[in-house]
Amino acid sequence: MGDVNIVPTDKIIAGLIQAEIDQKTKPLASLGKVETLALQLGVIYQTKSPRISKPVVFICAGNHGITRQGVSAYPSEVTAQMLLNFKNGGAAINVLAKTFGLEVEIVNAGVDVSTIEHLGDMNLPVANTTQDFLSQDAMTSMQCEAAIALGYKRALECIEAGTNFVLLGEMGIGNTSAAAIITSLMTGFPLDTCVGRGTGLGEQALKVKQQTLSAAIEFHGREHEPMTVLRKFGGLEIAALVGIIFAATQSGCAVLVDGFITTSAALIAVALQPNVSDYLIFSHLSKEPGHRIALDHLAGTAILSLDLCLGEGSGAAIAFPIVKAASEILCDMATFESAAVATAKSGVQ
Amino acid sequence: MGDVNIVPTDKIIAGLIQAEIDQKTKPLASLGKVETLALQLGVIYQTKSPRISKPVVFICAGNHGITRQGVSAYPSEVTAQMLLNFKNGGAAINVLAKTFGLEVEIVNAGVDVSTIEHLGDMNLPVANTTQDFLSQDAMTSMQCEAAIALGYKRALECIEAGTNFVLLGEMGIGNTSAAAIITSLMTGFPLDTCVGRGTGLGEQALKVKQQTLSAAIEFHGREHEPMTVLRKFGGLEIAALVGIIFAATQSGCAVLVDGFITTSAALIAVALQPNVSDYLIFSHLSKEPGHRIALDHLAGTAILSLDLCLGEGSGAAIAFPIVKAASEILCDMATFESAAVATAKSGVQ
Repeated sequence: MGDVNIVPTDKIIAGLIQAEIDQKTKPLASLGKVETLALQLGVIYQTKSPRISKPVVFICAGNHGITRQGVSAYPSEVTAQMLLNFKNGGAAINVLAKTFGLEVEIVNAGVDVSTIEHLGDMNLPVANTTQDFLSQDAMTSMQCEAAIALGYKRALECIEAGTNFVLLGEMGIGNTSAAAIITSLMTGFPLDTCVGRGTGLGEQALKVKQQTLSAAIEFHGREHEPMTVLRKFGGLEIAALVGIIFAATQSGCAVLVDGFITTSAALIAVALQPNVSDYLIFSHLSKEPGHRIALDHLAGTAILSLDLCLGEGSGAAIAFPIVKAASEILCDMATFESAAVATAKSGVQ
Repeated sequence: MGDVNIVPTDKIIAGLIQAEIDQKTKPLASLGKVETLALQLGVIYQTKSPRISKPVVFICAGNHGITRQGVSAYPSEVTAQMLLNFKNGGAAINVLAKTFGLEVEIVNAGVDVSTIEHLGDMNLPVANTTQDFLSQDAMTSMQCEAAIALGYKRALECIEAGTNFVLLGEMGIGNTSAAAIITSLMTGFPLDTCVGRGTGLGEQALKVKQQTLSAAIEFHGREHEPMTVLRKFGGLEIAALVGIIFAATQSGCAVLVDGFITTSAALIAVALQPNVSDYLIFSHLSKEPGHRIALDHLAGTAILSLDLCLGEGSGAAIAFPIVKAASEILCDMATFESAAVATAKSGVQ
């Protein structure tokens, strides 16, 4: 991925887009953050008509060696079982995708699916799991690069087929542990402020998680170089997400980030390519305490705050209709002139 | 409307609905407020499959005599011009309704449309405007009852044709003034805490608005009886909204409330029929300062907080897909058993 070079959006057009928004038949700024989204979309797509086309939610999946230390409420087997659930259409993300017209693409970056029936057509993973980062690197450099390349390739295929809007999702038992360490190392915040209950740990199990992750950082040292952090602690699915972010932003697509895990991938991607930020939209603020820290570091404002902590891209999917509304408002709403509606009285506003 | 009697929802089913939600293939409570919505829908519709059918956003319109005192940034003519804009599909609510599959019903409760071409098929209003409540009652008792009956009838027609979900919207230059007084009188909060900038008043005009509304309360006295408050200060569109709320809740439909104006109608409806509360869903917290006061009084939690202050039902429409997601999650998502996914390890949670 050495040749990735994300260019910033051209902000010259922003004035034109804002003027268009201000001419719509509504009081100035009365659509609040929806107008902010409309402006961002106009700038990303460089047009007054930023129509969303064939939106895809990518669910990147991977298992985590660190789960053997008891850092998750669910066993690792659930990752593959949920892939089957995604395939059968029974998961939250399937229901949401169907409701909102999203295509679901499963990117198997690191899950052994060989023993699960009916998953034969899933792509072969880069590895069956990461290694336990308590005392080893989670990935080799080659695995990490391969997972990034996998995400990059899969996203590019969709973009070449007409997708211009990408939603990030993930599945991987144990991946709030990886995200917590990535967030701590990339933002400089203490580890403990970034560790949460994940899928529902109790008090005792939360302590085990904190101690385990603390020991892991002790073993590896507080690295800061993004590729090193990703390789040593990351998940294969987080690496694949970095690849998807690169493919989308390089192609000028907006990227709707989900929760804590996908935001940790965004931290890595932005550290490697700062211009990625121009294309990111943040869907929701999750219950995981590290998520706010990561969002603040990226100067991101979440659209929703609904106490979600599910992953799968579910938060991105739930925020998607609001982003779509912003796009349609900019594309289709009448202006004062076209609708012959009087504007505010001069001197009163 | 003397025969309206709204019965409470039967909460017996709540345990069954919650058990169903908890059996879905996701960690407990991981869909946060979406699950709260799903539970409320299940209880309102008394089923584990609360499917939304033919949702309609009702835009109740009315003009306000108080506008002659300079309390709004826009001239009264805009109300009728916007009705034409709604009819032509150019307003924000039209774009949102099209995006989210909502039907738009315009209920003309108090706008003179006789001079506007192409509005000939709009229903005749109860009156062409309210009176200036600075020194008169806004409506007669008969007008107020007729406006309530108009909303009631129009909603019932849709419900009889298959609608089971109602969104509230409104259009009426000057109606944040009416809503501010209603909110102050129905909640007991001081008037000044309930008065805001409406469609964008400047500092000086805001003072005029505050002084005018204060003088109006001085003239009429701090009434508390809901029908009296509605008749003396309300808009014809606010009265029509009360009728819509009654028709919907009497029929067991959920009602998605928009912003400050529609919430002021909810304050009146709940004061008259407390069981109405069981059926109300609050879409967003608007920029108008009185809105939070009204929501708190109704013990309502807004789904969104996007700094909207447009009205028209736009906030309800933007929140609608999230409510729909909650419904579809409850209806269609797989359970751990049906999907053969392992649950959390005992002792870890």
